[in-house]
Amino acid sequence: MTRIELYDATLRDGMGGGGMSLTADEKVRLVRRLDDLGVDIIEAGFPASNPKEAQLFALLEHEELSHATIAAFGMTRRRGAAAADDAGLRVLAGCFAPICTIVGKTSLHHVEKVVRVSREENLAMIAESVAFLAAQGKRVIFDAEHVFDGLREDRDYTIACLRSAASAGAERLVLCDTNGPSLPSHVARAVAGVRAALPGVPIGIHCHDDSGCAVANTLMAVEAGATQVQGTINGIGERTGNANLITIIANLQLKMGHRVVSHEQLRLLTDTAHFTDELLNRQPEPHQPYVGKNAFAHKAGLHAAGIRADATTFEHVDPALVGNHRDLLISELSGKGTVTEKAERAGLELDDATTARVLERMKALEHDGYQFEAADGSFELLLRKESGDYQRLFALESWRVTAEQHADGEVRTEATIKIWVDGERFVSYAEGNGPVHALDAALRAVLTEAHPHLAETWLTNFKVRILDETKGSDASIRVLIDATDGVDTWGSIGVSTNLIAASWVALVDSLEYAEQPSRVRGAAAP
Amino acid sequence: MTRIELYDATLRDGMGGGGMSLTADEKVRLVRRLDDLGVDIIEAGFPASNPKEAQLFALLEHEELSHATIAAFGMTRRRGAAAADDAGLRVLAGCFAPICTIVGKTSLHHVEKVVRVSREENLAMIAESVAFLAAQGKRVIFDAEHVFDGLREDRDYTIACLRSAASAGAERLVLCDTNGPSLPSHVARAVAGVRAALPGVPIGIHCHDDSGCAVANTLMAVEAGATQVQGTINGIGERTGNANLITIIANLQLKMGHRVVSHEQLRLLTDTAHFTDELLNRQPEPHQPYVGKNAFAHKAGLHAAGIRADATTFEHVDPALVGNHRDLLISELSGKGTVTEKAERAGLELDDATTARVLERMKALEHDGYQFEAADGSFELLLRKESGDYQRLFALESWRVTAEQHADGEVRTEATIKIWVDGERFVSYAEGNGPVHALDAALRAVLTEAHPHLAETWLTNFKVRILDETKGSDASIRVLIDATDGVDTWGSIGVSTNLIAASWVALVDSLEYAEQPSRVRGAAAP
Repeated sequence: MTRIELYDATLRDGMGGGGMSLTADEKVRLVRRLDDLGVDIIEAGFPASNPKEAQLFALLEHEELSHATIAAFGMTRRRGAAAADDAGLRVLAGCFAPICTIVGKTSLHHVEKVVRVSREENLAMIAESVAFLAAQGKRVIFDAEHVFDGLREDRDYTIACLRSAASAGAERLVLCDTNGPSLPSHVARAVAGVRAALPGVPIGIHCHDDSGCAVANTLMAVEAGATQVQGTINGIGERTGNANLITIIANLQLKMGHRVVSHEQLRLLTDTAHFTDELLNRQPEPHQPYVGKNAFAHKAGLHAAGIRADATTFEHVDPALVGNHRDLLISELSGKGTVTEKAERAGLELDDATTARVLERMKALEHDGYQFEAADGSFELLLRKESGDYQRLFALESWRVTAEQHADGEVRTEATIKIWVDGERFVSYAEGNGPVHALDAALRAVLTEAHPHLAETWLTNFKVRILDETKGSDASIRVLIDATDGVDTWGSIGVSTNLIAASWVALVDSLEYAEQPSRVRGAAAP
Repeated sequence: MTRIELYDATLRDGMGGGGMSLTADEKVRLVRRLDDLGVDIIEAGFPASNPKEAQLFALLEHEELSHATIAAFGMTRRRGAAAADDAGLRVLAGCFAPICTIVGKTSLHHVEKVVRVSREENLAMIAESVAFLAAQGKRVIFDAEHVFDGLREDRDYTIACLRSAASAGAERLVLCDTNGPSLPSHVARAVAGVRAALPGVPIGIHCHDDSGCAVANTLMAVEAGATQVQGTINGIGERTGNANLITIIANLQLKMGHRVVSHEQLRLLTDTAHFTDELLNRQPEPHQPYVGKNAFAHKAGLHAAGIRADATTFEHVDPALVGNHRDLLISELSGKGTVTEKAERAGLELDDATTARVLERMKALEHDGYQFEAADGSFELLLRKESGDYQRLFALESWRVTAEQHADGEVRTEATIKIWVDGERFVSYAEGNGPVHALDAALRAVLTEAHPHLAETWLTNFKVRILDETKGSDASIRVLIDATDGVDTWGSIGVSTNLIAASWVALVDSLEYAEQPSRVRGAAAP
C-alpha cells in the first residue's frame, strides 16, 4: 500500500476563516506540534505577503524539525511576464523552504472569465512557473484550483493544465475542490479519471466542507488513488472550513489500514486538536469526531451497561488510540497516567493517594470550567499543592481595582492590594495600563525584594473567553495568561463569573509558578 | 427517479446529545416547522416513556399537519413473551401515530453477547413485533440496529433478520450505522448488498457522525438505492451527532437532482436550522454548510472581486436557494466594492467621497488593531458615522468601575456612569458579576426608558485577546462582544491598551447598533 502523505494547510488556508489570527511565535509553536504529530509537509504561507509572514519564515528557517518539511505557498507567474522576472516566484525561489506549492487555474471558465487570459497563456503560466522553481532546486507541488469544475466543463483543457504542470516537473498534482461543491462519488470518479489520463503522476486532494463532505471526499480520493491529503487541524478555514486533517488521520489509520503516523503519534491527536483551538482562542467542538469531549461520551442505561460488558460493542474505536477517553470512566481511569507523567516531568514523585487527590481536585476544577491543557503552570501548582512541595508567595487580605474614564478621554487604572508575607502585612498601590497590569505591578512591588527572579519574568499573553455562551452575565469566564522568563514559557488559568477575579487567579498562579523553589534554584524545566 | 423520503429524528434521537431538552410545547413548535419544511415523517418518541412524552402525543394528536406523518418509536418485544402481551408494543399499537418505527438487533454479536438471546428467538422477536403492529393497522418501519457491523460479522444472519422484518410486513428496512463506524464506500457496498439480497424492499439509512462522514454516508446510500433518509436538524445527537438532515436536504436537491421539497420549502432551510438552535438554546454554528453565517462569507481581495464579477465562480450554490445570503468579510484587504455592498445591505447610500473616508477610517482603525470581520455591528456604525445616518445614544462624561475582593473571598463589582442624553445629565450606578456586566447594567438603567427595545437585547459572547504579545503591558487588547435580540445577532469590537476601556468601546457599539433607527423601526435586516 502506497504511503499517504499528510499535508497541513492550517497556517495558510486555515487562517482564511473569520477571526482567525496567530502571531509568528504562535505559528512556530503550532509547527512544532504538527511535526510531533507526524505531519509530512507544513504549508507556512507566502514568505513575504506582509512583515508577519516574513518574520515567520525567518523563525522557521532556524527550527529543527524532526520529520516535517516546510512548504512556501504562492501562485503561478503573472500573465505576459517571464517566470524569472515574477516578483512572487522570486520570493519563493529565494526562501529557505525546500517545497514550493503554487496554485494555478485549471478551469477554462475561470481562465477565460475571471483571469481573462488565453487558454494557451494559462498553460504557459503553469509550465513556466513550475519549471522556474524546479530549476532553482525546489520540490514543486501544483495546486489545481477549481479542478473539479474544470473537469465537468472542459475536461480536455483541465487535463492539459495538469499535464503541463507535471511535464514541467511538479512532483504532486493536487486536485482542489476550491468552492467545495463536490460529493464523494464525484471526487472518486474525478480522481480515477485524472489518474487514467496521467498515469504515474502522484495525485493529492484538497477539499472544503461546503457540502458537509470534505472528510469523506478526501477518503474517497485516497481510495481512488490519491496519495497526498491536504487539510487543516479541526477543519478550520474559510466559509464552512477545510477538510479536517484530525478526522482524516484517524480514519486513514484506524478504518482504512493506512499507516500515516506511528501509534504514539496517533495518541497525540486529541492534544493537538485542543492545543490548536486554545492557540486560536476557540471553543473546542465537543462533538468533533474522535477528539471531541463528547466523541466517546456514553449516556447511562443500556449503552453504558453495554460499554462495561464489552466496549467494542458500543464504540467504533478505542478512544485511547487517539488520545481521547471514554466519558463514563473519567474519574476512575482517565488521567492517572497523565498525572504521573506530568509529575515526573516537574520532578515530583506522587504516591497513589496523592495522585487520587490530584485527580479528584482536577475533576472538581474541570467541572467549574478549568482546563489545564494550555495552563501547564497552574497544573504543576496543583500537583505541588497536593504533594506538599509548594511554596506560597503570600496570603491575601484584599485587592481592589478601579478603572475610570473622564471627559478628557483618558483612562486611569489603579490597584491596591493588602497581603501578608512571612507574617508581615503589606499594602501596595500601583497604577497600570489595565486591571491586570495594575494588579501585577502592585504585587511585584512587594514581592520582588524577596524574589528578585520575578523581575526577570513578564506576562506575554492574555486571553479571555466565555465558557457557556447561553448563560449571559452568569456565565463563567476563563482567563489564560502566558508568562516567560525569556527561556521558559508557562501558562496559567483562572475561572470565575467575574473577569477581574478570574484574571487575579491566573495572575497569582503565573507569579507563583515562576517562584517555586525547584524552578528558581536550577534550570527551567523543559 | 424514486422520490426520497425525509425522516426526521430530531425529537427522539437528537435529544440524546448532552444538554438537549425541549418541553412538549416546544416540540410541537418544531414539528410545525418540520412540516412546513416538507419533512415526510417526524419521529416523536415513545408515547409513554415519561409524562412529557405522553403529553407530547396528546398534543400532536390534535395538530393538523399539512404534509408530515407522525411516527412513534419503540423496540421489538421482550424475549419469551407474546407480542400482544408486550407492554411497549401495546402502547405503540394504542397511540394515534399511523407509523410505528421499531428498532431490533441485526448483529449476531449483539444478539449473543449483549441481549443474550438465541439467534432464533431474535428472529422471532423481530417478525412477531412487526406482524403485531401491522395487524393493528400500523405502517411499520424497522430500524436495523448495528446492521453494518452485522453484515461484516455474519452476513447471512443479518440478512435473515432483515428478511424476517420485511416478510412480517415492515414497509421500510432502515440500515442504522448505530455507532457510526462506517465510511462512505462501506455504506454504498452494504446498501447495494442488502438490495440484491432483498429485492423490492424499500431501504432507509440512519447514520451517526463518529467518522465525520454521516452526511456523505447517507448520500452514498441514496446513490446505492436507499429511498428513505433519516437525520436530525443541525446534526444534533449523542456523541458526535446524527446525520445532518439540513445538509442532506440541500445536497439531495441541489447536487443530486432529487426533488425532496419544493423550491419555497428549500428556502426555509436556513430559518429552520436557526429556529431549532434557538429552541435548544444553542449558538448556531457559523461554519455549518449551506445555512451557517459564514457558509457564503468571502474575504475581500481576489475572491470578493470574483464574486462581484460572477457569483457562480466562487459559490457552489446560490445562497438564496437555501434562504441564506452572501456575506463579505471586511478586512484590511477590502476595497471600495465591499464597502459599497455592505452599505447597500444596511440601507445606506454612500457617495464616492464618503466611501473614501470610510476606507481611510478603516485603515486607521485596523492599524490600531481593529478587525471588522467578526464585528459587523461596529462596521455598520462606522459607515453610519461617516454617512451621517447615525444616532448617538448618549454623550459620555465619565465612567468608573471598581472590583474588589475581601478576605471572605467574595468579589464585588460596581460601576458608576455619568452621561448626557438629550441635554439631560444622568448618573447611574449598578453592581454586576463583572466589570462589563456592571457597566452594561448602569447604561441600560438610563437608556431603556427612551429605548425600550434595548430590554429585548442581551450580550451572548465576550472574547479578549492581546494583539502584540511582545509589547507586554503596552500591548493592545482586542475585545469582541456578540449580542442578539433573539432574531438578529451582531458583533462589536473595542481596542485599547486597557481591558476595561476596550470592553467599554465594544459595549457601547453593541448597544448603539441595536438602537439605530433603521433597525428599530422596521424588521431586522436579513
